[in-house]
Amino acid sequence: MDALELCYMSAGELSGLIRDKQVSPVEIVDAHLARIEATEPILNSFITLLPEHARQAASRAEAQIQAGNYRGPLHGIPVGLKDLFNTAGVRTTSGSRVMDNFVPTEDCTVAARFQQAGAILLGKLNMHQFAYGPTGENFDYGHMHNPWNPEMVTGGSSGGSGSAAAAGQCTITMGSDTGGSVRIPAALCGIVGLKPTYGLVSRAGLTPLSWCLDHPGPMVRTVEDAALSMNAIAGYDPKDQATSQRATPDYASALTGSVEGLRIGVVKEYFEAPVDSEVEAAVRAALAQLVEMGATVNEVSLPMFADAQAISGTILMSEAAAYHRDLLASNGGNLTPSVRLRLEAGLFVTAADYLKAQQGRARFNHEMAMLFNDVDLLAGPTEPITAPPLLANEVAVGDRMVGTVAALTQFTRPYNISGTPAISVPCGFSGDGMPIGLQLAGRPFDEATVLRAAHAYEQASEWRLKRPPV
Amino acid sequence: MDALELCYMSAGELSGLIRDKQVSPVEIVDAHLARIEATEPILNSFITLLPEHARQAASRAEAQIQAGNYRGPLHGIPVGLKDLFNTAGVRTTSGSRVMDNFVPTEDCTVAARFQQAGAILLGKLNMHQFAYGPTGENFDYGHMHNPWNPEMVTGGSSGGSGSAAAAGQCTITMGSDTGGSVRIPAALCGIVGLKPTYGLVSRAGLTPLSWCLDHPGPMVRTVEDAALSMNAIAGYDPKDQATSQRATPDYASALTGSVEGLRIGVVKEYFEAPVDSEVEAAVRAALAQLVEMGATVNEVSLPMFADAQAISGTILMSEAAAYHRDLLASNGGNLTPSVRLRLEAGLFVTAADYLKAQQGRARFNHEMAMLFNDVDLLAGPTEPITAPPLLANEVAVGDRMVGTVAALTQFTRPYNISGTPAISVPCGFSGDGMPIGLQLAGRPFDEATVLRAAHAYEQASEWRLKRPPV
Repeated sequence: MDALELCYMSAGELSGLIRDKQVSPVEIVDAHLARIEATEPILNSFITLLPEHARQAASRAEAQIQAGNYRGPLHGIPVGLKDLFNTAGVRTTSGSRVMDNFVPTEDCTVAARFQQAGAILLGKLNMHQFAYGPTGENFDYGHMHNPWNPEMVTGGSSGGSGSAAAAGQCTITMGSDTGGSVRIPAALCGIVGLKPTYGLVSRAGLTPLSWCLDHPGPMVRTVEDAALSMNAIAGYDPKDQATSQRATPDYASALTGSVEGLRIGVVKEYFEAPVDSEVEAAVRAALAQLVEMGATVNEVSLPMFADAQAISGTILMSEAAAYHRDLLASNGGNLTPSVRLRLEAGLFVTAADYLKAQQGRARFNHEMAMLFNDVDLLAGPTEPITAPPLLANEVAVGDRMVGTVAALTQFTRPYNISGTPAISVPCGFSGDGMPIGLQLAGRPFDEATVLRAAHAYEQASEWRLKRPPV
Repeated sequence: MDALELCYMSAGELSGLIRDKQVSPVEIVDAHLARIEATEPILNSFITLLPEHARQAASRAEAQIQAGNYRGPLHGIPVGLKDLFNTAGVRTTSGSRVMDNFVPTEDCTVAARFQQAGAILLGKLNMHQFAYGPTGENFDYGHMHNPWNPEMVTGGSSGGSGSAAAAGQCTITMGSDTGGSVRIPAALCGIVGLKPTYGLVSRAGLTPLSWCLDHPGPMVRTVEDAALSMNAIAGYDPKDQATSQRATPDYASALTGSVEGLRIGVVKEYFEAPVDSEVEAAVRAALAQLVEMGATVNEVSLPMFADAQAISGTILMSEAAAYHRDLLASNGGNLTPSVRLRLEAGLFVTAADYLKAQQGRARFNHEMAMLFNDVDLLAGPTEPITAPPLLANEVAVGDRMVGTVAALTQFTRPYNISGTPAISVPCGFSGDGMPIGLQLAGRPFDEATVLRAAHAYEQASEWRLKRPPV
């Protein structure tokens, strides 16, 4: 089997070959390590690469499978974790040199569940410092580069996860999403990123950014792989009090290929905001395709859309500052200046402002919940633009200049506020070859419908077959 | 029937007479209105008295009962509500002249449920301004006076509820408890005050002080009346999202008279804090009585007891300031200076401090929950002192001078933090004739055990037969 083909196969495809002993996990891991070696000088996806660990784990997986102990669809599949997921015995930096010597003694729950499923950890992925930002300069471990054009950002904060999955360095990566940090790099790197419902995937052993907005989620090349990842990691964890005790379904079996009768609402405020014309055209074409496939699409309104930035920003700044306050006092000078500035500014948010933001959040969520009386999904662009240049503080959106951070987070933050599931799935390319993402959002704990619609669209579209030039 | 006897009968006693048509609600209401007229010049329990409303309601109740439509144990029973419980068509001041013209159009859920049960509203009771304080000078409607000695405070913030129930002005009163505001005046006025589990009694239509610490609760002369009140008011309310959907038991049937086998823990930190020697002696005698009745009493430790004031105070100041911020800006000059000062100070609490306090609360609650692995109830004094003089900013506790607010709230705040049920039940008198309260606290939603133990102790003790000299 061609090594590059192995790197671009999904877990869904690889698992059949592994189960049937047509391909060995050793072969798969070697292919990925070679791919990483070839592309890492350009992409810089990894903070810590674990070739020895991965080869040993692959040999063990191979032996287990040869002995008839096949564990299921993730057995032998190469995985990468954003470097704020604690890994026992492997340093976990959260993207900051201040944490360079932090070696957890225990795996986070997500890592433990991947390991239990037989997945193989290739390494720890690059990210914005403490996950605090979607773009800009806050990297202690070097810039992250977009596989579709290395002069462009991956988006963040889970940028290394985005580039590693997009460029075939890992089959599955994990990110975390506080204001869009899974969906932003997924959209900008041309992959699938799922932010599950708040409380569905454990955060035990993850460095928080803002604990009431943080969601870990899979970043992968196919919707099926998102479903397979969720099957491994979703569900109650006594170590994370926020996790729900409800039983989780088999997400893979939800992928029927049909959207017949699905009612999709398009939030009109998403298109009243500045949106690049190529992005708008691609998203509208995707919606037309969904209609052709049997869904209905209607315009709906979320009047508090305009308040999402203020609500989310106030909560995020407050909780990030509270969490990092001691570090800021003891070691603030060693943080990236932009992160230090945001954390210090967060210390000046008053409790009354924070509480007013939480009250605004309650009203916002009520408004969003009302929409779901009439529709099954909400749809729109994940991002108003394709990936901007590495150091752009402002970007042109149509004929307007917009702050890059605001532009990149405006469509994603609403679903962190609501805590409801949202996926970004590729839906086209700009004229200069950069990916565009369609965002689909569902009811709380209704990942099945979100995944089903994204999968049906993906199967009917041509975008999933594309590979970046890197 | 002697009018004064009717005023000192419990709802449990009166209800049998009403049901059997031996006494009419009209007779009962007239007796109470006369009692109020005689004692109000001394006590000042009421902000708004409703004699006409009450007489009309009593006539209606009498007619209903004569017609065979007896509604149950609260039918025809005189009730008073702290003046932050909204009452349709009756001004609801929250203790502030700023709200003098506020006439709600809708009853709060508690008022509606009492009315549904056939209880008769006599009036709205005096309180600290916005419920912000247990003692001091923040009264727009005049001082509240303790029926056992009018030179002494009732305690607060539900002081009018305490004096009205203690002096036979009402059979049942309602207070609200954010840092002790039900249990403090209950202890200092010699009555029973129950702070139920957070989320068991609806707060819809109540002015909040600190929404994550606020608990409405009954203030009555017998434990049975607390149970009968809870039967009327407890349980899910769609208007208060914090209310629990669990079914509520019949609290009255929990009053078996037995404490056989109950395991009671005495938090040692309660006696390491400054406690008046007469108070300590009375509480220890009550514990000895409970042992004699078949309970076991063991010392337990709550190391974070010392943090309760800081945790509760930070949360309370923040939420009160957030809630009253607009009023403070528009009308701050018309608030009592001490309340204005506390609200303005609250605006300077940072979000990080608030969040650290909430994190401290989580640890505190974990520590308290651990105690309940070994015991069924926690016990101790409700207050370290008996009622202090009206304007004392400091009080002598043993040989120490302690700030009055801190002294009065230190034993009550822990159960606002934990949100678990706690009752104050009379357990003796000081040499100068002032009441002392025993506090019993239970597991979440286990009001039945709290009420059972308090009732058994009350039945075995002599204190419930005492009446204040007023």
